[in-house]
Amino acid sequence: MKLLYPTSVAIEAKNLEGFGVSLHPYDVKSKIPEEHTDAEILVTWSNPGPVLKEEVSRLKNLRWIQSLAAGPNDVINAGFDTSKIILTTGSGLHDHTVAEHTLGLLLNAARRFFEMRDYQHQHKWSTDLGGPQPDRPKGKFTTLQDANIVVWGFGNIAKTLTPWLTALGANVKGIARHAGVRQGIEVYSEDKLPDLLPNTDALVMILPGSEATTNVLNAERLKLLPKHAWVVNVGRGTSIDDAALLSALEKGEIGGAALDVFRTEPLPEDSPYWTAPNVIVSPHGAGGRPQDPATLIAHNLRRFLAGQELKNKL
Amino acid sequence: MKLLYPTSVAIEAKNLEGFGVSLHPYDVKSKIPEEHTDAEILVTWSNPGPVLKEEVSRLKNLRWIQSLAAGPNDVINAGFDTSKIILTTGSGLHDHTVAEHTLGLLLNAARRFFEMRDYQHQHKWSTDLGGPQPDRPKGKFTTLQDANIVVWGFGNIAKTLTPWLTALGANVKGIARHAGVRQGIEVYSEDKLPDLLPNTDALVMILPGSEATTNVLNAERLKLLPKHAWVVNVGRGTSIDDAALLSALEKGEIGGAALDVFRTEPLPEDSPYWTAPNVIVSPHGAGGRPQDPATLIAHNLRRFLAGQELKNKL
Repeated sequence: MKLLYPTSVAIEAKNLEGFGVSLHPYDVKSKIPEEHTDAEILVTWSNPGPVLKEEVSRLKNLRWIQSLAAGPNDVINAGFDTSKIILTTGSGLHDHTVAEHTLGLLLNAARRFFEMRDYQHQHKWSTDLGGPQPDRPKGKFTTLQDANIVVWGFGNIAKTLTPWLTALGANVKGIARHAGVRQGIEVYSEDKLPDLLPNTDALVMILPGSEATTNVLNAERLKLLPKHAWVVNVGRGTSIDDAALLSALEKGEIGGAALDVFRTEPLPEDSPYWTAPNVIVSPHGAGGRPQDPATLIAHNLRRFLAGQELKNKL
Repeated sequence: MKLLYPTSVAIEAKNLEGFGVSLHPYDVKSKIPEEHTDAEILVTWSNPGPVLKEEVSRLKNLRWIQSLAAGPNDVINAGFDTSKIILTTGSGLHDHTVAEHTLGLLLNAARRFFEMRDYQHQHKWSTDLGGPQPDRPKGKFTTLQDANIVVWGFGNIAKTLTPWLTALGANVKGIARHAGVRQGIEVYSEDKLPDLLPNTDALVMILPGSEATTNVLNAERLKLLPKHAWVVNVGRGTSIDDAALLSALEKGEIGGAALDVFRTEPLPEDSPYWTAPNVIVSPHGAGGRPQDPATLIAHNLRRFLAGQELKNKL
């Protein structure tokens, strides 16, 4: 059996040895060499779409694709037949990096580092952003302490993030398909949004891209947020109705938006997000650095060979 | 006995009642009314220097000044005779806000939000800052996870900050006058700096302003830091040799500097810090919002009346 692994991320092949599977590195930017098109297993990471698309008809023996991305839209979009080929995601490899970035975005929103940067370019010392300030003025999101933060999408990233938010003094609530208490955080189903949103200081969205999550943050729900509330999105750009969010931002109906993901990436040069008021544009930089992928691959490889259910099966 | 408290911050006077002391609010921007110049106790917060200076000769009965600032340089510089007047600081009122801001500065340094802002203004999607990235490349400070962070000045702010840093996966060490283990963190004396600095990813300075701390981060010590190391200063601007830091930044000898405090504030328009490479200028915005000052004032008022040692005595 043959496994192809990408050289676009550091994977120590010796951690995949001992299974009697032949291991071959490949360059994601080039066609897979003819002699390796008989591979049964393909590991993907940051493969360019057009190159990946060509492999669909070439890799005829493919039985399993292990993506290292949390959301393997690239593999699905390339056209691999996932009714016949097992597809597993890199869910879990990005929890820490995405959670850290999300915390950074929340602190940027609350402590307004983005505005400080603008003042810095003007050589201006802002007395609005520094010096004695009113303590937690009404109608502003100025600190995570005692802030009401709602995390929409309560998977592993949320589970990494929420203890930090709680340690910083925030009141965290979750929204997910299944309600319940997770790690001491009350997680509600989506039908509770009308109750939660009016009392939210920051709404953190960590939803996967799918039909069910498309435009779930719509005009109606945005209107329920207080005027000072921030929206932070590190899930997928498709979960936000862009026109509705931009309108809310332009009209000052919400406090701001810190966005790491967009419907179209790279964000087009003429996108209104670049210049809309109180928007922080982060170029899909939350994840992008899978942590210890070899352990996940080895774990799934053993299970694959043993005919067991794989981890992170889509 | 008469206590004057400032209206520059919300203090609920009813929390200071019950001691038989008459309580009078005053406007820090104006001269204290003639009929109140007999006050024995003065609470200060953001009093303008020149106004405060005039009060030195007017408040002849003054026995105690309770500043709400962590470092009451304004009171000292005004010329009050602290050999006769007790001076207590607002140490502790700013721990959470300063620690939160410091965490924000560290995340800005590691995740480069300041650079994202610059790209945003150019409508440019940076592939250096987003998308697939090498995981923790050598010679860069890209995450708090496994980062070596040295906190110089290990008082209450450090004690608030370090559990958060540890939760985010950082290895934290402290530097203080007295060595020892505090809250599970190994705190070393300054003579250990030559051992610690060469292995430091971020140096966080939380030192008070004093002769002993003037220019303690000098050229010699800066040279010991790795090329990718960041300096974060939320203590006092005087603790850094500005010429040495600016030279290190210009020559790329350190990774960057996130500065909330400066020798001269407001930072002059022609300061080289505004434009030096990899500098984040924050306009003394870490603190500035004393948390629950009434509790500290009431605590010290009771002790003052009982002739006991006051908390936060300078």
